[in-house]
Amino acid sequence: MATEVVIKGRYGGRAELRKGQRLEVVNVEGGQICDFFAFNRDNPREHLSPSHTRSVLGRLYVRKGDVLSTVLRRPIFEILEDTCGQNDLTIPACDPQRYLSDYGLTDHRSCRMNLAEQVTDIDIPYEYLPDPVNLFQRTPVLEGGRYIRETSPSKAGDKVVLRALLNLIAVGSACPQDLAGSNSVPITDIKFIIHDA
Amino acid sequence: MATEVVIKGRYGGRAELRKGQRLEVVNVEGGQICDFFAFNRDNPREHLSPSHTRSVLGRLYVRKGDVLSTVLRRPIFEILEDTCGQNDLTIPACDPQRYLSDYGLTDHRSCRMNLAEQVTDIDIPYEYLPDPVNLFQRTPVLEGGRYIRETSPSKAGDKVVLRALLNLIAVGSACPQDLAGSNSVPITDIKFIIHDA
Repeated sequence: MATEVVIKGRYGGRAELRKGQRLEVVNVEGGQICDFFAFNRDNPREHLSPSHTRSVLGRLYVRKGDVLSTVLRRPIFEILEDTCGQNDLTIPACDPQRYLSDYGLTDHRSCRMNLAEQVTDIDIPYEYLPDPVNLFQRTPVLEGGRYIRETSPSKAGDKVVLRALLNLIAVGSACPQDLAGSNSVPITDIKFIIHDA
Repeated sequence: MATEVVIKGRYGGRAELRKGQRLEVVNVEGGQICDFFAFNRDNPREHLSPSHTRSVLGRLYVRKGDVLSTVLRRPIFEILEDTCGQNDLTIPACDPQRYLSDYGLTDHRSCRMNLAEQVTDIDIPYEYLPDPVNLFQRTPVLEGGRYIRETSPSKAGDKVVLRALLNLIAVGSACPQDLAGSNSVPITDIKFIIHDA
């Protein structure tokens, strides 16, 4: 059996998974980044951590076969499939201050607020919200450590399939960033499909 | 007037700074990484954030003249001087789980526990302790995003001088990692020198 959650472009969405279930994250129209977050249901302070994932793998990027780690260095997901092959583990979520400082906007939606809206039940202070794994985002590192936020190279139907290695809450944000060139504009939907083990 | 705090090799230390004061972080014998953390004294949840610093700068590394940012994308330090010129913003602190998973050790000191010991008064859950800026650490990124933890190239007397842009608590850990080649062995001291504005 499969359950679907449509995450409207510019908004967040959430799914609860049991250990062993698979989460398919689908790029509905292509060119769209999904900021991705997860929390252990048995201890919601334990979250998916891009920095600990990088450390365990010794790499800035992830690919099929990799295991993603929590802040306690425990496995939380295995990447079973990745048709786009571009994911970023270095960029923090866009947030109200990003739109204010860089564009003078006070009312732009953001991935960090999308996350906050999805996890009001687990009571995380705003300052402690975790950084995302940015699915479908390509950020090549150049000489001197400068990196570029390229437009997501994802095509319609591209997907990342993850096996849950804990009972967890997964949150996606169909990234509302329409001013930096990192998403195709207009912003489009992401779909979560949850498959039984 | 200047105040000194000696941070013994393998241990943590702390200093409180007022906005405008300068913090000199000295590599006493060379070859030693200092995991570095900071918190806004007026809202200790607001911390120095390597990911937001990278995002604001568009770079994985920092250098003289750069401003470091908090999780709220506010300036917290300016780098006034950096005689070594190698600092890392991608590697999380070593922690008990790292020593257990990778070396089978249950009683090795770690930067994350050093940090926890220094900030018991600000009551941060272990899972929310921030990632460090790793002063004097060199981590070149290779093809495919793989990165290397090189031995700290710092020499005796190398220093990073930071201007505090907020009233803050700064914590350093003279990184106890003596098994990965990232520090010269034996582990040596770091010194904080606080100068008035």
